Amino acid sequence: MSSETAPILAINYKVYPTAFADKGLAIALAADKIAGEYGEAVSIILAVPATELVRVSEVVENVKVYAQHADPVEPGAHTGYIPLEAIKAAGAKGTLLNHSEHRLKVSDIDWLVQKAMTLGMETLVCADTPSVAAAIAVISPTYIAIEPPELIGTGIPVSKARPEIIVNTIKTVHRVNPDIPVLAGAGISQGEDVEVAIKLGAAGVLVASAIMKAKNPEEKIREMVEAAYRAWKK
Amino acid sequence: MSSETAPILAINYKVYPTAFADKGLAIALAADKIAGEYGEAVSIILAVPATELVRVSEVVENVKVYAQHADPVEPGAHTGYIPLEAIKAAGAKGTLLNHSEHRLKVSDIDWLVQKAMTLGMETLVCADTPSVAAAIAVISPTYIAIEPPELIGTGIPVSKARPEIIVNTIKTVHRVNPDIPVLAGAGISQGEDVEVAIKLGAAGVLVASAIMKAKNPEEKIREMVEAAYRAWKK
Amino acid sequence: MSSETAPILAINYKVYPTAFADKGLAIALAADKIAGEYGEAVSIILAVPATELVRVSEVVENVKVYAQHADPVEPGAHTGYIPLEAIKAAGAKGTLLNHSEHRLKVSDIDWLVQKAMTLGMETLVCADTPSVAAAIAVISPTYIAIEPPELIGTGIPVSKARPEIIVNTIKTVHRVNPDIPVLAGAGISQGEDVEVAIKLGAAGVLVASAIMKAKNPEEKIREMVEAAYRAWKK
Amino acid sequence: MSSETAPILAINYKVYPTAFADKGLAIALAADKIAGEYGEAVSIILAVPATELVRVSEVVENVKVYAQHADPVEPGAHTGYIPLEAIKAAGAKGTLLNHSEHRLKVSDIDWLVQKAMTLGMETLVCADTPSVAAAIAVISPTYIAIEPPELIGTGIPVSKARPEIIVNTIKTVHRVNPDIPVLAGAGISQGEDVEVAIKLGAAGVLVASAIMKAKNPEEKIREMVEAAYRAWKK
Repeated sequence: MSSETAPILAINYKVYPTAFADKGLAIALAADKIAGEYGEAVSIILAVPATELVRVSEVVENVKVYAQHADPVEPGAHTGYIPLEAIKAAGAKGTLLNHSEHRLKVSDIDWLVQKAMTLGMETLVCADTPSVAAAIAVISPTYIAIEPPELIGTGIPVSKARPEIIVNTIKTVHRVNPDIPVLAGAGISQGEDVEVAIKLGAAGVLVASAIMKAKNPEEKIREMVEAAYRAWKK
Repeated sequence: MSSETAPILAINYKVYPTAFADKGLAIALAADKIAGEYGEAVSIILAVPATELVRVSEVVENVKVYAQHADPVEPGAHTGYIPLEAIKAAGAKGTLLNHSEHRLKVSDIDWLVQKAMTLGMETLVCADTPSVAAAIAVISPTYIAIEPPELIGTGIPVSKARPEIIVNTIKTVHRVNPDIPVLAGAGISQGEDVEVAIKLGAAGVLVASAIMKAKNPEEKIREMVEAAYRAWKK
Repeated sequence: MSSETAPILAINYKVYPTAFADKGLAIALAADKIAGEYGEAVSIILAVPATELVRVSEVVENVKVYAQHADPVEPGAHTGYIPLEAIKAAGAKGTLLNHSEHRLKVSDIDWLVQKAMTLGMETLVCADTPSVAAAIAVISPTYIAIEPPELIGTGIPVSKARPEIIVNTIKTVHRVNPDIPVLAGAGISQGEDVEVAIKLGAAGVLVASAIMKAKNPEEKIREMVEAAYRAWKK
Repeated sequence: MSSETAPILAINYKVYPTAFADKGLAIALAADKIAGEYGEAVSIILAVPATELVRVSEVVENVKVYAQHADPVEPGAHTGYIPLEAIKAAGAKGTLLNHSEHRLKVSDIDWLVQKAMTLGMETLVCADTPSVAAAIAVISPTYIAIEPPELIGTGIPVSKARPEIIVNTIKTVHRVNPDIPVLAGAGISQGEDVEVAIKLGAAGVLVASAIMKAKNPEEKIREMVEAAYRAWKK
């Protein structure tokens, strides 16, 4: 039972009002506590706003802190852009890339994924279709997440509404590269959705509003982690 | 002798290798010390990478910490974008906008400047020509900086190479709105360049590589602050 | 009674299915016929897709053919971009710029407007607020069009729903430069809307879906031209 | 000897001054004449500016006219953008996509390639590295062109300076999909460069400045076509 095969709960803070300062920190501490309880049986990624990386990464121990994006530039004269070196210096272990709210050019994904590897950083690259996911698989990021954009933020879980898209993505991605874990995202709002996704073959889930807009984010994280653990143990 | 009329030294960290972590912090602390010595006789702005805002703003007292950019979005589902509320939560008092390395749409500048005002934040908007500067003046940002892009990073100071562009920009901006301080930037590398810019009517200067790439950034900041103070007292 | 003071009907083809080949050409020929009947009493601009400029400009005589956009590049190695020289070579007399569906950076508007002038071409620059319109006025395009984006394509005419935005824009633009004609757009769907806009002080209107989606585009153009003429004669 | 296996000479007009009106037309007619002479033994693609599609496609018979780019939008309210339907209506049989001067998001390439297929149109998608080319191969465009950006426009032919990049790209692309012809581009300036590229396994070449800036474009096209034919016959 290694951490490599443990199910992944990736929480995308986006820039929801709860993503910043004390509120964002409270969610990070809750996730960190739960991750500590589960040890190697679950893996939690927190993709926080770039501005919160220092604050969050300084206090957590059991979760991986990610950025939500990085710009395809080297350190230098690029006012207002954020190179991988910037998020690394701020404590990020990796970054989301190509989220449906922040699509990237294919050459830039290629450049960023290679560059992240040389910096010892991870990449979780999003895709909207099995075909795009397979194209990205060629580039060999650490993780791929499949998210049908039309379900993002709806509360209609991809695992129920479009199970075939998860299955097909895993198939097309693994045909290209069987070693890349595929996460499922979009509309995941309950433990049950997490369980279904993992039973369909997903290595974990990518969630956002379900946690960031929850009345009790800690409870919601716990619900999802428990479900992931349950599905994974079977 | 109010701080409003004091000359301004705005330091754009860009994302130079010296902009991050300990190195960026050391420059911030040096600037803060010098600003403390000069009191209200000089005003220093540090435009640091978004990822460094928390780290820098927590330790400085005498300088204004700015971001280098903000995205024209409200808090919400905008993965990897940085709304004004994000930089405010991270300690920024304002932001650069429309730097020549990060140009913005005119409607977005308008939106960001209005929004910053409602959030009690400042804006320093860059322009490449007197005509663009005057257009931006209509939108009423806190400051305007004129920077001929072809001189940025060259070490050839705008105050020597293109003094007429500073004079013309001040004229066209003040015809639209006489209350907007105009900074000069591009190639400013010595105290003398600062002095000339202020004598030409600039409210201060916007510098980057001269300080971020200096062997001794503290010395270079001091050289520029002294020159600004000297020019301003006359 | 010069053509300079005649009311303007600017028709934005966008890329509606009716904008291309025979359908686009038929609308152009109808507009051309009506423009011929009204002579100098009305001025019609057709902003057609870039791909249709040659086809349309070869056959019309009484209307001005415009592009809908131009890219801020010189002729040269810019695969897939469209410089002003390209649309000029294809017969365009001018171009829309900064439509709400295609916003531009302020420096690029400045560059394009100046460049168009040196090429003897006209520019009709769109704005979403009185403040943005006044900023653009500083740059001195041939025309400015005010279009509240939330009304575009709705059929709710700006002239009824937001008359104050037309009045305020004309005021702020003319404070900067009294010589720039201001057109009103968004939701203009009937002759009456045109009439109201002109009575509020607009130099004309910018319309799209009302004509491009009309069952009988010729009839709709005639309705608007008649209304413009009626309002203008008074 | 089918046209499918014939070597391909794809000429990217870019927006060089020679790309427009009479000059662009003369190059098209020269290419068309030469293509007529060679029949099925060679295949010529002309990627002309969007504004020239109607003019060129109306007069040529033996070459395929392409656009240089298409925007990932449906026909409708997208002022100044160019959907695939627009270039099809103007006579294009296909389009370049993702040229190094006009990179696209991976999801948009996926969308455009699928959409082009449903419209019966071809796509020639450019890539800058073997890894990006293989990623694009997953999406199954009609052709892929490999162009190291640093050689574009230099006159230093990729076939001499970086032969291994051609060989590696063909290998990685064909591992994904053996049916996609791979063209080589960047710096191709003489018949000899074409010959070498084809001998390395390329299905043809993508050229621009060598022809568009030639004193005698017809002669240069003939030189390249002859070389392609020579290499192909062996």
